[in-house]
Amino acid sequence: MRPGAELTVVLHQTRSPDNLGAVCRVMANFGFERLVVSEPFVEDFSLAEKMAVKGGHILAGMRVAPTLQEALEDCVYVVGTTSRTQVEKRTPLTPEDAARRLAEESTRGRVALLFGGEQRGLSDEDLTHCQDLLVIPTSDVQPSMNLAQSSAVLLYLCHRQGLTSAPALPQEEEAGARLGTLNALSGRMRAAMLAADFLNPQAPEHVLHELERTLMRARLTQREAELWLNAFKHLGRAVAPGTSRG
Amino acid sequence: MRPGAELTVVLHQTRSPDNLGAVCRVMANFGFERLVVSEPFVEDFSLAEKMAVKGGHILAGMRVAPTLQEALEDCVYVVGTTSRTQVEKRTPLTPEDAARRLAEESTRGRVALLFGGEQRGLSDEDLTHCQDLLVIPTSDVQPSMNLAQSSAVLLYLCHRQGLTSAPALPQEEEAGARLGTLNALSGRMRAAMLAADFLNPQAPEHVLHELERTLMRARLTQREAELWLNAFKHLGRAVAPGTSRG
Repeated sequence: MRPGAELTVVLHQTRSPDNLGAVCRVMANFGFERLVVSEPFVEDFSLAEKMAVKGGHILAGMRVAPTLQEALEDCVYVVGTTSRTQVEKRTPLTPEDAARRLAEESTRGRVALLFGGEQRGLSDEDLTHCQDLLVIPTSDVQPSMNLAQSSAVLLYLCHRQGLTSAPALPQEEEAGARLGTLNALSGRMRAAMLAADFLNPQAPEHVLHELERTLMRARLTQREAELWLNAFKHLGRAVAPGTSRG
Repeated sequence: MRPGAELTVVLHQTRSPDNLGAVCRVMANFGFERLVVSEPFVEDFSLAEKMAVKGGHILAGMRVAPTLQEALEDCVYVVGTTSRTQVEKRTPLTPEDAARRLAEESTRGRVALLFGGEQRGLSDEDLTHCQDLLVIPTSDVQPSMNLAQSSAVLLYLCHRQGLTSAPALPQEEEAGARLGTLNALSGRMRAAMLAADFLNPQAPEHVLHELERTLMRARLTQREAELWLNAFKHLGRAVAPGTSRG
């Protein structure tokens, strides 16, 4: 089984239809489809449609469970999200470790990522249903994340966890600039900049080399080097129109 | 400087006060404070307060810039978020690589994470202001993420990046080129190259942007950017000697 394929998102005691819809959208963004709401405080689920944007199929297929226990009953592994770093001496996972565990455990069956309600989060009792807890590290200024935003962070990580086994893209690089072209460019830069009174004719090298080094660092392609060369040919001719146009 | 300390969040053409507020909240969650909105379509910023929840100080301190260019002018490095994987042959970064680059570049000065508007995202023109692009990998079912949710994912990663490299780097880098200087350079390059008949006056952008991108890749220091600027000031004057020497 592909890691991540069996992830269920469980929203416990969700209150805001906007959040419910936004979670549907982000689930669709990251390729997850199974959503369960347990003991929802939302009365009219159709209000969630506006925020669901192309996640409507997830809202339509959502299961409603009367209790948290029933919401989780077909899962082999559950991680509960909390903002409390101390819960009965249990050490929470980092988001990255939680995503890894969920992927590992998903080879055994359905796994769930559980979110508490907007006002109180998950209670100690709720968390007893979870094999692991996770905390998204936040700033002391504002430790409490919006439900839809924390789901975005975690579903992104779960998605990436599933993706990491994807074969790397074969990257095709364009041809690099040949040294001959770079030397020609250097000559044309010097001529144009001397003619324009930018370089000191007594000691032009120092500044010229400094500019050349910036182009070296850019790792020009051959095409780019030729563009620069051509630009300085034109500039040099325009500055000193009397000289040969060869 | 602590990596991540200098991150600016820039929202271009944001339309929804709810999104603006939600971005403030998630910035507060992850310890970021500097917010700029450019060309905002929001008329009444106070409507964003409800969603900002303890991120009100960020909303209050937000800077409003009339153009994207002005929003970015004090930054040395900008990553633009897009859902398009093909933008003028530029290969976008992954979110993780972008967070890493932002942390690295933040040792040189202010860095920005740029988000486009809800309806059209960032245009090709907007993206020319970005040294790098990033794409959050999403499912084909619903590739378009909500602004507040994509900011949650990316600010989480930036926060983690800052945390993981916790001890400040003792390495002192020279100050990076500010975007204001780079924009001035771009203007001078255009003028000199047009006057020298190198650029096609009907469509100068394509070639000009190609050259500019090579300088972006070089990660110019402020000193180097000023050298180039000065060089093109001289070249432009020498090509068109009748114009003012101011």
